[in-house]
Amino acid sequence: MKVDGKHYRTIWPLAGQSAVEIIDQRRLPHHFEVVRLEKVEDAATAIRDMLVRGAPLIGATAAYGIGLALREDPSDGSLQRATELLQATRPTAINLRWALETMVKAVAELPESERAKAAFERAGEICDQDVELCQSMGRHGLELIRSLWRERGVTINILTHCNAGWLATVDWGTALAPIYMAHDEGIPVHVWVNETRPRNQGAHLTAWELGKHGVPHSLIVDNTGGHLMQHGQVDICFVGTDRTTASGDVCNKIGTYLKALAARDNDVPFYVCAPSPSIDWRISDGLREIPIEQRGSEEVDTLAGLGANGKIVEVRITPDGCPVANHAFDVTPARLVTGLVTERGICEASRTGLRGLFPENYPQPE
Amino acid sequence: MKVDGKHYRTIWPLAGQSAVEIIDQRRLPHHFEVVRLEKVEDAATAIRDMLVRGAPLIGATAAYGIGLALREDPSDGSLQRATELLQATRPTAINLRWALETMVKAVAELPESERAKAAFERAGEICDQDVELCQSMGRHGLELIRSLWRERGVTINILTHCNAGWLATVDWGTALAPIYMAHDEGIPVHVWVNETRPRNQGAHLTAWELGKHGVPHSLIVDNTGGHLMQHGQVDICFVGTDRTTASGDVCNKIGTYLKALAARDNDVPFYVCAPSPSIDWRISDGLREIPIEQRGSEEVDTLAGLGANGKIVEVRITPDGCPVANHAFDVTPARLVTGLVTERGICEASRTGLRGLFPENYPQPE
Repeated sequence: MKVDGKHYRTIWPLAGQSAVEIIDQRRLPHHFEVVRLEKVEDAATAIRDMLVRGAPLIGATAAYGIGLALREDPSDGSLQRATELLQATRPTAINLRWALETMVKAVAELPESERAKAAFERAGEICDQDVELCQSMGRHGLELIRSLWRERGVTINILTHCNAGWLATVDWGTALAPIYMAHDEGIPVHVWVNETRPRNQGAHLTAWELGKHGVPHSLIVDNTGGHLMQHGQVDICFVGTDRTTASGDVCNKIGTYLKALAARDNDVPFYVCAPSPSIDWRISDGLREIPIEQRGSEEVDTLAGLGANGKIVEVRITPDGCPVANHAFDVTPARLVTGLVTERGICEASRTGLRGLFPENYPQPE
Repeated sequence: MKVDGKHYRTIWPLAGQSAVEIIDQRRLPHHFEVVRLEKVEDAATAIRDMLVRGAPLIGATAAYGIGLALREDPSDGSLQRATELLQATRPTAINLRWALETMVKAVAELPESERAKAAFERAGEICDQDVELCQSMGRHGLELIRSLWRERGVTINILTHCNAGWLATVDWGTALAPIYMAHDEGIPVHVWVNETRPRNQGAHLTAWELGKHGVPHSLIVDNTGGHLMQHGQVDICFVGTDRTTASGDVCNKIGTYLKALAARDNDVPFYVCAPSPSIDWRISDGLREIPIEQRGSEEVDTLAGLGANGKIVEVRITPDGCPVANHAFDVTPARLVTGLVTERGICEASRTGLRGLFPENYPQPE
């Protein structure tokens, strides 16, 4: 999407496949900095140190990382070392494993002289496929906003949580794709951006990307969504998902469940943008089957921001020695989800709904 | 309650009525500093600049402020000037007006030579009455915790929001009073402390006071409560209230409604500690009749914390120019409140429930 009028993706190769560039997302929203990745080690660092985040973007960065390794040394040994190095950066990321397997498959049988070029091409395809996936979801979600706009004829207020925007993908995003499309075709939208403690991805990333693309929005703290819904100030919710079960339960950033409860209590439609790679067809009961990661206390008790001197500084915001619990995700039961927006269309958040769109993943009869 | 083993109230007179001391709550949790108020102007500044906050404590500070004014000049003119000065500090605080009226009544008819002493005594009574009110609520709330403890025999996990502790009152607090009493009598409790964005009163004040008194607790972000309730990690919720309607709707810090929804969805009892001065007997429908204050964006986009140099520094945590909405309170409908804990006992959050305990406020027959 656009940054001050210029179109960006989150990752792009330089001419001649000499290197890849990314946006250093750790520096957002205070500094917009492009970082060049020249070696596979740079790609590994970018993933490990979270210059890039979001499952699709992690996969894309790893894919280009293989290209960078093979540019320097196209041997089998180099391919294996690069794969292991990249896999170790974020061991639990599903897209990472998938991207690396895809890359190995694309180059392993080729003569060494052709590998680097083929790897860059395959990485580019992975990026383009992600963009298409997001665009497909976006077009389906756009229909929901369009209907509301036709029906109401006033600015459509949309609430979102965390960052499921273009910064989490290669372009467009998942939950924000319908919003960008609505805005781009002239539908007046306004987005309530949840701050999303503890890592503040809403304040740091979603507010930044919406602002840079020119989409009207207001930042709110995570406590506010319910009040807005009680007062008719939210027309529809769009959120992303880290993992969706085969029966439509949604594991997403902590706090998603509370907003879904408020949406249900106030008859506000609550949609989850769930590309099929986020759906775990093997599991059904999200509350019982999805382990919730507990992360370090420093994400809660320490916060980075722009100091008076224009530098990014860290401050502690809790009493000395205060015990902290930091659950990273929660599960929103399917019963609270109005619908899942997938690349194949929108369906009910249920086994039946998902089976209708993805029958190949439900081999057993009902 | 205790701070490192020593008992404190939030306000206390010095021997000989020469001055009053308070805790500078703006400096918490990083610095514990006692500030001496020697003149009425000091008391006014303490209220206006929020060295003290919480309705009961504001009233108590204003009451002592009258004493400080009369110690210097016991004339009618001085009394009037002091009243006007203090009233102007937080014009909408109901306790402030009540405390000032009480003080004027207590001294206006006395000879000038007796006024200062009488004012200090009356201010002391106002403080003692507040302590008694909190203790009464605490004893009723304690019964709920005791029952859970008898029934389950394991640590009782309690969730609270914002700061309704001793720092908001003269001692004990409202929502935290039952918790302190349970802890003091040896019932094992553990408190989930909501951070409470945007002003972080949970992280700054509740976590600090529980820690200093020795009550086990964990700080969580405001997004987390629902997840904990889904997993049986919350046995009961206690929150305070800024304003309660005659039918039991509760206006409290923004985000209270979301936690109440989660409590209902998971069958967790949700109690509101509502001293009768917080009940507005004239209004019934909280959602329609209570205007919600919108406060400045700086509470959301700027945050103060302890920097690496040991000094408190402010940082901006949002993109430059990011639009912000900051709703300070929300309304939890009575249907989501398991019960109101008052100084006269616990009742259903309804007109019928409140009428049973406070019949004098319902002069009309049903």
